[in-house]
Formats: sequence, C-alpha cells, structure tokens
Amino acid sequence: MIDFRSDNTGRAAPQILDAMVAANQGTELGYGADAWTAQLQDRFSQLFERRVRVFPVATGTAANALSLAASAPPWGNVFCAAAAHINTSEVNAAGFFGGGLKLVPIVGDYGKINAGALAAALPAFPPDQPHRGRAAAVSLTQATDFGAVYRPEEVRAIADVAKSFGLKVHMDGARFANALARLGCTPAELTWRAGVDILSFGTTKNGGALCDAIVVFAPDLVDGLTIQLRRAGQVWSKMRFASAQLMAYVENALWLDMARASNAAAARIAEGVSGLSGLRLLAPVEANEIFLELPTTTLDALERDGFQFYRRPGNVARFVCRFDATEAEADALVAALGRHCGTDRQAAE
Amino acid sequence: MIDFRSDNTGRAAPQILDAMVAANQGTELGYGADAWTAQLQDRFSQLFERRVRVFPVATGTAANALSLAASAPPWGNVFCAAAAHINTSEVNAAGFFGGGLKLVPIVGDYGKINAGALAAALPAFPPDQPHRGRAAAVSLTQATDFGAVYRPEEVRAIADVAKSFGLKVHMDGARFANALARLGCTPAELTWRAGVDILSFGTTKNGGALCDAIVVFAPDLVDGLTIQLRRAGQVWSKMRFASAQLMAYVENALWLDMARASNAAAARIAEGVSGLSGLRLLAPVEANEIFLELPTTTLDALERDGFQFYRRPGNVARFVCRFDATEAEADALVAALGRHCGTDRQAAE
Amino acid sequence: MIDFRSDNTGRAAPQILDAMVAANQGTELGYGADAWTAQLQDRFSQLFERRVRVFPVATGTAANALSLAASAPPWGNVFCAAAAHINTSEVNAAGFFGGGLKLVPIVGDYGKINAGALAAALPAFPPDQPHRGRAAAVSLTQATDFGAVYRPEEVRAIADVAKSFGLKVHMDGARFANALARLGCTPAELTWRAGVDILSFGTTKNGGALCDAIVVFAPDLVDGLTIQLRRAGQVWSKMRFASAQLMAYVENALWLDMARASNAAAARIAEGVSGLSGLRLLAPVEANEIFLELPTTTLDALERDGFQFYRRPGNVARFVCRFDATEAEADALVAALGRHCGTDRQAAE
Amino acid sequence: MIDFRSDNTGRAAPQILDAMVAANQGTELGYGADAWTAQLQDRFSQLFERRVRVFPVATGTAANALSLAASAPPWGNVFCAAAAHINTSEVNAAGFFGGGLKLVPIVGDYGKINAGALAAALPAFPPDQPHRGRAAAVSLTQATDFGAVYRPEEVRAIADVAKSFGLKVHMDGARFANALARLGCTPAELTWRAGVDILSFGTTKNGGALCDAIVVFAPDLVDGLTIQLRRAGQVWSKMRFASAQLMAYVENALWLDMARASNAAAARIAEGVSGLSGLRLLAPVEANEIFLELPTTTLDALERDGFQFYRRPGNVARFVCRFDATEAEADALVAALGRHCGTDRQAAE
Repeated sequence: MIDFRSDNTGRAAPQILDAMVAANQGTELGYGADAWTAQLQDRFSQLFERRVRVFPVATGTAANALSLAASAPPWGNVFCAAAAHINTSEVNAAGFFGGGLKLVPIVGDYGKINAGALAAALPAFPPDQPHRGRAAAVSLTQATDFGAVYRPEEVRAIADVAKSFGLKVHMDGARFANALARLGCTPAELTWRAGVDILSFGTTKNGGALCDAIVVFAPDLVDGLTIQLRRAGQVWSKMRFASAQLMAYVENALWLDMARASNAAAARIAEGVSGLSGLRLLAPVEANEIFLELPTTTLDALERDGFQFYRRPGNVARFVCRFDATEAEADALVAALGRHCGTDRQAAE
Repeated sequence: MIDFRSDNTGRAAPQILDAMVAANQGTELGYGADAWTAQLQDRFSQLFERRVRVFPVATGTAANALSLAASAPPWGNVFCAAAAHINTSEVNAAGFFGGGLKLVPIVGDYGKINAGALAAALPAFPPDQPHRGRAAAVSLTQATDFGAVYRPEEVRAIADVAKSFGLKVHMDGARFANALARLGCTPAELTWRAGVDILSFGTTKNGGALCDAIVVFAPDLVDGLTIQLRRAGQVWSKMRFASAQLMAYVENALWLDMARASNAAAARIAEGVSGLSGLRLLAPVEANEIFLELPTTTLDALERDGFQFYRRPGNVARFVCRFDATEAEADALVAALGRHCGTDRQAAE
Repeated sequence: MIDFRSDNTGRAAPQILDAMVAANQGTELGYGADAWTAQLQDRFSQLFERRVRVFPVATGTAANALSLAASAPPWGNVFCAAAAHINTSEVNAAGFFGGGLKLVPIVGDYGKINAGALAAALPAFPPDQPHRGRAAAVSLTQATDFGAVYRPEEVRAIADVAKSFGLKVHMDGARFANALARLGCTPAELTWRAGVDILSFGTTKNGGALCDAIVVFAPDLVDGLTIQLRRAGQVWSKMRFASAQLMAYVENALWLDMARASNAAAARIAEGVSGLSGLRLLAPVEANEIFLELPTTTLDALERDGFQFYRRPGNVARFVCRFDATEAEADALVAALGRHCGTDRQAAE
Repeated sequence: MIDFRSDNTGRAAPQILDAMVAANQGTELGYGADAWTAQLQDRFSQLFERRVRVFPVATGTAANALSLAASAPPWGNVFCAAAAHINTSEVNAAGFFGGGLKLVPIVGDYGKINAGALAAALPAFPPDQPHRGRAAAVSLTQATDFGAVYRPEEVRAIADVAKSFGLKVHMDGARFANALARLGCTPAELTWRAGVDILSFGTTKNGGALCDAIVVFAPDLVDGLTIQLRRAGQVWSKMRFASAQLMAYVENALWLDMARASNAAAARIAEGVSGLSGLRLLAPVEANEIFLELPTTTLDALERDGFQFYRRPGNVARFVCRFDATEAEADALVAALGRHCGTDRQAAE
C-alpha cells in the first residue's frame, strides 16, 4: 500500500518530539507564562522580521476560527474561496467561534480568490446598511485547496482591495511552508509585507505533531484573541511542550526542508504524468497536492494496485505527498498511471 | 526555590513522551480514525469496566465546557460549587460552548456541592416555566478546588437528586487520579456506578503533557459531542499522538502512582503542620493541595525563604504538590512553617 | 410621488389596529397565558385544518431565525436559495440564533430552490462525516424574492427530497398570503400537506402592523422553540395585543383580500408592460412584486416622474405593490413606462 | 377577583393605542427610517436633556440583553443583584445575546447592588489575567425586584466605582417611571447625570402595549447595537407603530401620571398594613410592589377572598399595583389583611 491520502496521515519529524523531551525539565508557570513560550515569541519575531505574537493552538481549525473571530464582529462577513477549508471542512467553526459570522464565497481560479471579484462584491456591503452585515475580513488559503500557490503580488492585490474597504486579511497557512518552499520568498514577504494581518501557521500537514499556531501581525487583534483562546480551551497549561514543538519545527529550516521534499514528490508526479492522455490536472501542481480527473476504471485500477487516495465527486482523485514521501513512491504512481492511461502519442495514433 | 505553585508547573512523566515517540511510525488516517485511538477506546473501556467513549482534548477547559455543552441546552442551568474551576477560572467557557447556558452555584463544604442544597434549589426550575430556563446538569469537581474528595456515596447522593429531576451528572476530574488514589476505589465506582454521565478526565495536573480527555458513559451524549469537538477545533488530525499519551498515562497504573506520590507529599505537609499554632487549614487535605490561612508576616517570610506558592485574598496560601515533589521539599516547608509559626504547646504556654 | 418601494412602507389594515383597541380590557396573565392567545391557537388550527402551535413574534427576521434554530443544531446546514431573504438581508440572524448554523445556497429559477439540485447536493453531507456538519433543514421563501410562487407540488417535491435525507422543511412565508391568493389553494395544501414543518407566517408586508408569527406543524419543534422565544426577547408580556392582531388579520379573509389587491395591482402592471420593448421581466409576476431590467435612462426618467422604487445592480428595478395600491397608481406606472420605452411594434418598425 | 399578580396583566393606556391609529397614514420607509422614529429621537433627547439614541424593541428582555451585549464582550462579566430580573427571569438572555457573557451577583439590600461590595469584588478581575474574564459592566434594576428605588446619589456611587474600573453602567428601567415618580427627579438626574451609559426604558409594566426601548447615552455603544438589533429580529419594518407608542407614552407626562397612580396604590396598602401584626414587609415600598411575609393560613385566606397575587418560597406574597389599580382595590386588600392578621395592639394584648 502506498499512502497518498493526506499529509496528516504521516509521522511527525523526530526533531519535534525530541524537543518535547528536551523541554521536560524543571518547573515553569502554566498557560504560556514559561520560558519556552517567551523564547518562541523572539524566535518567530526573528523569523518574520518584525515583532509578532505567536499563540500555539491544538489544530488548524482552531487557528482559523479564532483568527477570524478576532478579525470580524458577530455581524461580520468573511470573504473566502468557495473551496476554502474553512468553508467546506471545518463544520462552520468560524461561524461558531465568531458568534454567527458569515462566510461569503468569492470566485477565482484553483481555489484562489480573484481580487477583481472581491472588489466587485464589496460595494454591496456599505457600512450604513444593516441588512447584510459588515464586510469584515478576507481569508486566503495558502497553498489553496487545489494545490495552487498565491504569489506575494497576488496576496498584495487582494489585501489592497480588502484594506480599501477596511477589511482585515487572514491567511490560512495550513500549507504555508509548502508555499514558501515553492516561491523561495521570505515569510515576511508572503505575509505582513503583502498585507496579511493574521496567519494560521500550520505545522501538522508538514511534519508537525500536536500543535499549530496563530501568528498575529496586527497588534489590535492581540488582546481579544488572548482571552478568546483561553475561553476556547486552546491554552495548554503546560504550554512549554507546544512552544518547544514550534521552535523545533523552524529550527535549522527543518520546516522548509520538509516542505521542499513533499513539493518535490508532487512535482515529480506531475512531471511524470504530463505526457499521459486520458487524465486532466485540475490545477497547476505548485505545492504537495495533485488533483487529477481520471476515468472511473483508472481510479478503480489504482486502488487495486494498492494506492491510497481520496476520490471526490466528478471522477476526481486527490494525491497528497507527505514530507517523507519517497521518489520511489512517486515513480510507482507515475508508472501505474502510465499503465492505465494511454500516452498522448498512443492517443494520437 | 521550592515550587508549590501548581501541579501544572511541573514536568510530564517521561513514559508519556516516550509513548509519543513510539507512536511515530507508519501512516494512519487522521482525526481519530487511527489504530491508537481505536485501542484507546478498548483500554479505557477495560479501565472503567464498561463500554465508554474517550475523546482526547487539548485542555481541561475544553473537556469541561464541551462536556457541559453536550449535557445542557443553551437555555440550561448547570449547578456547581461556587468555587468550581468552571465557575471561577475558565472565562465562562461553559457559557460560550453551551450557547449561553448558565452556571448556578450551590453551597457545600470545602468546594463540594451539598446534595440537600441541590434538592432544595431544583424545585425553582419546574419544566413548564420559561423564565429561569431548564435545570439541565450538575457538575462536581473531583478533587474539589479546596483539595477535598467526594466519596462514591457522596457522588451517588448528588446524582440521585440530579436524576430525579432529569439532570445529567458531569464530573470535572482534573484531579480524578488524586481522588482515586486517596479513596482506593475503582474508576467505575467513582463515576458511572455512582451516577456520573460524563467525565473530564484530567492528566495534565498529574504528569500529563498536552492531552486531557472526555470519557462518556451516557451513550446519548456521544453524537452531538463528536461533531461539536470537531467544530471546536479539538480534534487533532494526528490524533495518534494524543491517544498514545492517554494510554501511557494509565499503563501499569502510572497515573495512580503519580497521584499517590503527590497526595503523600501533601499529607506529609498536613501532618507536619498539624501541631502548629497560628495557622488554619481551610479544608481537609485529601488530595495534593493544602490551603492554609496564615499571618501576612508568615506568608512574607515563606516567600523570603524561597517557597513559591499562590496567595489569595484573606491571607490564604495554596500549596500544591506535584507528582515529583520530594519528601525533602515537603519537610522543608514544614520546617519553615515551624520556624515562623508557634507550636500549639508554645501557644498554650 | 407614487411609492412602489416596498410593501412595508404602507399602512396597516385598520381592522388590525381596531382589534388591539378591542383587546384593551380587563386583566390577563402575561407572556401568552391570556385568553386571546389561547383563542389564537384555536383560530389558526381551524385555518390550517389541524392542530398547530402559533407563536406571535415581532418581526419576520425573528420568525425565520428562530424557526431555523429550532430545526437545525448549531452544526447544521440549512439549504436555501441564494436570493433568499435569510441569506441576503437578515444579517445572518439564522447563524446567530442557531449558534453558528450555516446557510448553503441551492440553485433554482426565480429565487426558488430546484428539487433536483437539492437532491444532488445532499449526498455530500453523509451523517457519519464530521467535517461539513449535518444537513439539517431546507428553507423555501414563499413568494420568492423575485416574486415567483411555489406550487404545492413544487413544495412537495422539495420536501420529499428533504425528508428522505432527514431534513426539516421551513417556509419563509413573508408573502404567504400573496402566494395563497395567487394559487387559490388552502393554507394546509401549501404547507403541512406539502411537507412543511414550520412556517414563518408574515403579516407585515400585507397590511400587518407590529406582529408576525411562527406556525409549527411538527410537534417535536415546539418545546425548544417555546423557551428559545422567551430567551430571544420575543415573548411580549402583553401578548394579547399581538394575538389580537393576528386574529384580525385572518378574520373574514381580510388577509386574502389584501393579498389579492396587491397581486392584482402587480398583475395589472405586468400586463400593461407586456407589449413594451426595451425592458425585461426577471421573473414571472405571480405575487405583488415586479422586477424589471430597464435602461438607466428609463430608471432615471421614472424617478423624475415621481415614482419611488428600489434600484439594484445590473439596471434592475423592483416595484412592489401594497395592499392599498390603486389601479390608478398601477396605470400611471404603465403609462410612464410606455412613454419611456418603445412598444414592440415601434421596435419592429 | 382583584388582580395584584403583575403590572403586565393590565390594560394599555388608551392614548398609546390611539397614537398607533393616528400613525396609520401615508407611506414611510421601513426599519426605522420613518418620520415618527426621527421625531422620537428628538422627543427623547428633549426629555433626557441631551442627545440620545432611542431604539424601540419588543420586550424588556430584549432591551436588557441587547444593552448588556453592547456593553460587554463575550468574555465579559456583568455585575448585578442576585435578585435582578436579568439574573432570575430572562432565561439568561444576556448570556445568549452576549455570546456567553456571565452575570455575577453582588450583594446589597432590597434587590440593590451595594457600591462597597462592588468595589470589593472588582479587584479580583484584573485586566491582565485571562482566567476570570473581564469586568465589563454593572446593571442596576430601577425600581429593584423588591420594589425599592435607587436615589441618584446611590446610582452615582455605584457608577463611580464602575467607571474607576472601566465598566459600563446599564440600568434596567422596567419600572423607571415608578422610580422617577417616587423621587421627583428628572430622567437625566436618574440616568446619565448619575453615570448611566445605557437604559432599558420600560413601558409595558406601566401602561405600555407592545413596545419598550433602549436609550443610549454613551455614543460608542450605538454602532454595534444598531446592527445587533437588526440581527436580533428587533427592528420592526413598520417601526412607526412602535415609535408612536413611545411618544404617546411620554406625551403630557402620561407615563409619570400612570406611575404615580400605581405607586400611590402601593403606598396606600403599605400604609394600611403598617399597624398589623403577623406580617413582615421585605423591603420599603417605594414603587408599585409590596412584598409581604405572611402565614400560610393568611395566604390561603386571601386567595379564598378572591385576591390574585404571586406566592414565593418562604411564605412570601408579592402584590403589584397597576396604573389603573383603584383605591377601593387597595383598601379591600388592607381590610382583608386586617381581618386575617392581628393588629399590633391585639398582639400586644
């Protein structure tokens, strides 16, 4: 069996668990008032080239929903891609934590928001009308739920529209490392320098264990978030073990190495299937996910071959590469697809 | 410095971190559909001598608030001790997760609920009146926030009152192991056999790391809770690392050994100060906490001596013993108190 | 000035205010425990040909949001037309009262839900997956927000799909009387006999004053709703004055007479403009609203002529006829449109 | 039967219904954008001797819960008397509208908050601790739930404490007119001049029909409240009929005349029973309510005599005088009590 089901089915980087073991010494105050968490603030401020606040949280859903609840009032509208994880897969946690805030889909390609479409939608929410609520925030998923990546200038374009209407900008960075690894830019360039106010900093899909984080750039979001996190049951009393994970994750560029590895495996597959006929890539492969439209017979055949992956409506298969995916696994998938699909040359004959 | 500040300032049991390392192999489905979490269900069912559902969660606040939200409608009243952690220290997380449910204090000794007082309060909430909402659940803190312990028959007495009015019974077991260790009874005897429907199963204060749990005895609470947990951002995608912690916690009675150790340290202190004058124990020392009323001068002196502890209004000091507290630390505190307080003999002379 | 802005800009039927005056005698228990409210239950049960529960509420938004909150858990999805008032104009009150429930748009013509589209959407919400929440309810707007009307068999087709997936069926009957007047069927045929579980019974847009109502057909929705209404500040202590309005509204078929009058005015306009060129009806005129796409110059000209109406993006004008709209007003609008648009004959020449 | 059950069992002042009839003319924009509602702003600004915003709402529960939700964040604590209507009788609507805010009882006499007790409680909520949430607002019930009245200087003393800790001050003025009538001071003196930020302006218990109001003195509360009201289903589309009621209520001092009448009836009863033995007044009779502790036999006898009133635990009877209570009714109650109780003279013999 070769597992392409998800990047959360895999192992954690051993360094991250080692860091927890290393932190298991002495006594420290609870709820984040410990030395590891203080050090985490410095480490991430360095990483992002400005003073930031980092809040470790248990899950990406918590990171997203609490970030949005901090960015929008209960009567706020949060604009996102229809395919965004917050809109499709988090049981409307944003609506729950946000006291009834509403997610409003904006069109775009490959799971992105189109800046022009956002600009066209916002005038319908003038601040002096009460019926539709307030336009409050926009949320970008990086990489997107179709495996595409926003360039810094794309983030900037959306943020410019958002800011001109007074909206906050949130980035769901569940695969932030994959985007960085792809683009080769700095964390700062892809976030606050491009207009991002608050970031869900994902680790779990990229070798993390039990801890994601919220990174706050906009200082006015910190106070409400601090207490909301406590009330949400997201403040570990032994926070040191979470902060240690986050520091190990970025130490020696571990996170980028892992993201490069999973991206590379995905690119290898994309490259490998580029000449095949009878399949269609739904989006450019820019991170660690490949979405293929394939005949049912091929999907069935792949499963018989021992490949694990998710099938979606419309004959779509999602293949996700983990940080420890091997070239051999990638090649095996390409070979199997080659067996089941024709090549373009065959199709042409 | 000798640290009696809290049981969450300390280390985790090394076995618990080791279990995480051991779980770091192979691929497994996310969100609790993994082999470790399946095994956890069996292990805890064995432990509690009946089929239970166990949901790992990040914090005790999450365990409590989600348990209560599952046990009460938004218009429900949840009865608890005034000193209960849910009422004093969790930013009304129960009200938040419960959509506006209300905590109603019931009197009792040493942080307990008095069964008679509960029985006296409930007739004010007849089901056919809309103004006060519904009486929905009762929550017991075990051990209490003053370090006392409910006997199984005390739990039973409260549960009998509760059940006769149709209420669910929740136990906040942040120090459940300490209570068990004190009483020498089984987990079953202290919970569902005594009428408990749902348990916040704490590990953090007793050598855990990043994971507590909800243990559900009443099957009708499972479905809502399952989805509510997901929506609350409390379902780790790499759940195996949480489930592994919980299994290590109870393996070879580790949890009870740790609780016995912290209880013993507290008992040693209580014993040691029993002959001293000028101090007053606020509650019987039955778990790992000691609450002492002391003159301000003594409190100051203890701090100068290098003891760390929390001071509360009314000249009260709280001393908490961790699982790795030593006899020497306990004896040092007793000696210091002996120096600063007189003995009863001295007082009598 | 001739006012076609909305059906809520107009007067109330004098009979409704007279009924309040008539109810102003003697003493009666508060919060709905009065004789008028008891009589209302009987009167509406007669009207709907079965035992129903009627809850007077202040507004249609309250009626809708509380109906949906009673029909769906906080993790529920409620399916509705994209153009539905609950989705566009009520500040996501449904999400607020429903503790974070989510509205999910389903396509269809003229503001309707298409039964086939609903059937196609529901399999994506299997009950054993936690990520998307539960499919909980469907909400139909009758008449729709484009002035079209669901036939009983259309309601039935949607309800059949809904029921087969375990969903509740809500009807937002803000213009329920207009739909009834158009179709000539009975209230029962258009609601519970066609599968509706709960109805927002609107009066305000059709000559009411300060009171709409929730009519409950599904008995399992009553208990939660009863207490939720109290908590929502929707239970008047002097309920008699609300119940009296509702009884006067249906007495001697007043409501249907008023709806027939506003429908007739709208039909007269639709008929009058049917031969004109340079305009487009966005939906069949089946109730009291007309949506016309018109050149900007015509829109401007109509405003100069003294007509009041709402303009929407895309050169759309909405004209709404009130129950006291006159034939002369309708004819004036037709005449003005005739002046500003060409006739088809002119266009053909 | 003579009805002393509640001040909401009675009629409305005819002038209030007449005003609705008079407002039933012409067309006006909905949702409060009408001429009556504009005039209401001016009329109440005059009444309160400063610019205020007035929002008509359906019920006192809505007025209270929305006022508190505007004054406190979801993690806020609102301090009130234990006996406060918001704490005992509104199904925790404040917790619901406030997203989980918490009511915290403060002791005091006769249903009042004691300023000293408030000052003693607030230091336990320092702004830099996350566990107990923020101290956000204080709510005073005027007149109290035991029929006592806060003097302006008492309001001021509480407000001074509140302001020094950054809290907002809310007044639940369900019986505001009764308090004014008793004290003979101006509306301004009893509210904003004494430090009140937001007022639930009750009419229903004093001759109103279907409309209470929120009066906002603190401008920073207006924006959130405006949209929250819409979302709460508390903005009537035909608002004119609500605004007309409120203007009629204060026109020609009607409200004060009515409050003086009900106060006088209560005072007449209090005076009449002052010499009787075997009964105890629970609080000074300063508004329109009398709370008497009476032997069960007397309570039973009064019911047999045809008096209607509420019995509470502890042999307490509540008698409430409506604006249209007559001297004869008051005298009848006094006479009956005289028959069933002894006089002090008899007791002394």
